[in-house]
Amino acid sequence: LKKIKLSANILEENDLAANKARKYFTKQNIFVINFMGSPGSGKTTLISGIIKLLKKKYSLGVIEGDVATAKDAEKIAKLKIPVALLNTDQIGNACHLTSKMIRKAYKKLGEKVNILFIENIGNLVCPAEFDLGEHLRISMTSITEGDDKISKYPPMFMKADVIVVNKFDLLRHFDFSVKGVKKDIARLNPKAKVFYLDATAGKDLDKFAAYLEERLINLQFTIE
Amino acid sequence: LKKIKLSANILEENDLAANKARKYFTKQNIFVINFMGSPGSGKTTLISGIIKLLKKKYSLGVIEGDVATAKDAEKIAKLKIPVALLNTDQIGNACHLTSKMIRKAYKKLGEKVNILFIENIGNLVCPAEFDLGEHLRISMTSITEGDDKISKYPPMFMKADVIVVNKFDLLRHFDFSVKGVKKDIARLNPKAKVFYLDATAGKDLDKFAAYLEERLINLQFTIE
Repeated sequence: LKKIKLSANILEENDLAANKARKYFTKQNIFVINFMGSPGSGKTTLISGIIKLLKKKYSLGVIEGDVATAKDAEKIAKLKIPVALLNTDQIGNACHLTSKMIRKAYKKLGEKVNILFIENIGNLVCPAEFDLGEHLRISMTSITEGDDKISKYPPMFMKADVIVVNKFDLLRHFDFSVKGVKKDIARLNPKAKVFYLDATAGKDLDKFAAYLEERLINLQFTIE
Repeated sequence: LKKIKLSANILEENDLAANKARKYFTKQNIFVINFMGSPGSGKTTLISGIIKLLKKKYSLGVIEGDVATAKDAEKIAKLKIPVALLNTDQIGNACHLTSKMIRKAYKKLGEKVNILFIENIGNLVCPAEFDLGEHLRISMTSITEGDDKISKYPPMFMKADVIVVNKFDLLRHFDFSVKGVKKDIARLNPKAKVFYLDATAGKDLDKFAAYLEERLINLQFTIE
């Protein structure tokens, strides 16, 4: 009971911080997007692809969550975009980011941005519970992981605004039922916007970027 | 500070329970193997393949950890092996199994077994911290996840007795450096036994099964 109570307290504390952060980001005209997904589902590749499409029009920034190493942050830095790295093994909560960590990392970016991408820890469980003050929540899986991941990790996909099924170019090589996935999404999160992408080749990334822009405008952010 | 203290208490409590459980399992001549890895890395497929190779010689049992659904447990049950399902979303600690959960699940198996396979939650972070009273710890990743997972999730691979790189048949289709992985393992866990497998096709599973038998004998378990 003690454990459950404390865990509820941690979540409640995070929710309060997240709501405060969201208000701050909204007021500052910063559209915040939280990318979550399995290890190796293609989060960094997708964010990199979107950056290439949007960086001429918007000022962009990235917060990179990683248990250890700066590998993903280095990939982003090559795109000449400000990036702040959060190594969670240095902080004590290795399995997910929290709203408090985001506020600190945002300050480290050192630049005013218009769209802030957050790459969460590769994990289909814990990050789902932690609101980061984002305006849009993206949950990713990929063809190579098998077609059962959405049903097996429901909180991650039930709370998503967008579900991305990546590595779609590999569909014919794997025993993967798109019909089954569509059924699972219809059951767990029928309102989610769904994209089937090949982030490495960049297929349909233009549609994904157009959708992000549409959301930005609908939420009444302005282009800076 | 309060949070860190409690977290340390939870881990300490689990370690004590795990050591007690390991003594019990050893005394009962039950060789316990904990399979951990990314979602979709092939844990169920690998366990199923090993079961087919060993079930004539040993009495086997499986504890299936899953956030939700009975999908993996149903796959194992088809092999006519006793299986106990742990759905962690019903228990409150969704991201990993604990030693306490294992003791309860073991009782549900209802049969005396000689080798007990545990399939942990698909997660490269949290399960690494929780000793389940096992005798052998197997950490899995796969070619399709990319070659950086061992360096990016060090605790999962530093504490492993065995590291499995699965879906090795797909190597030529992915930008994956085996040399890099070997370097990471040499740096983080040079004593680990490493297998490059294709669990779906069953390639080299005989060598993996032979290794498990060798460990069983070395640890002075007897064949029942």
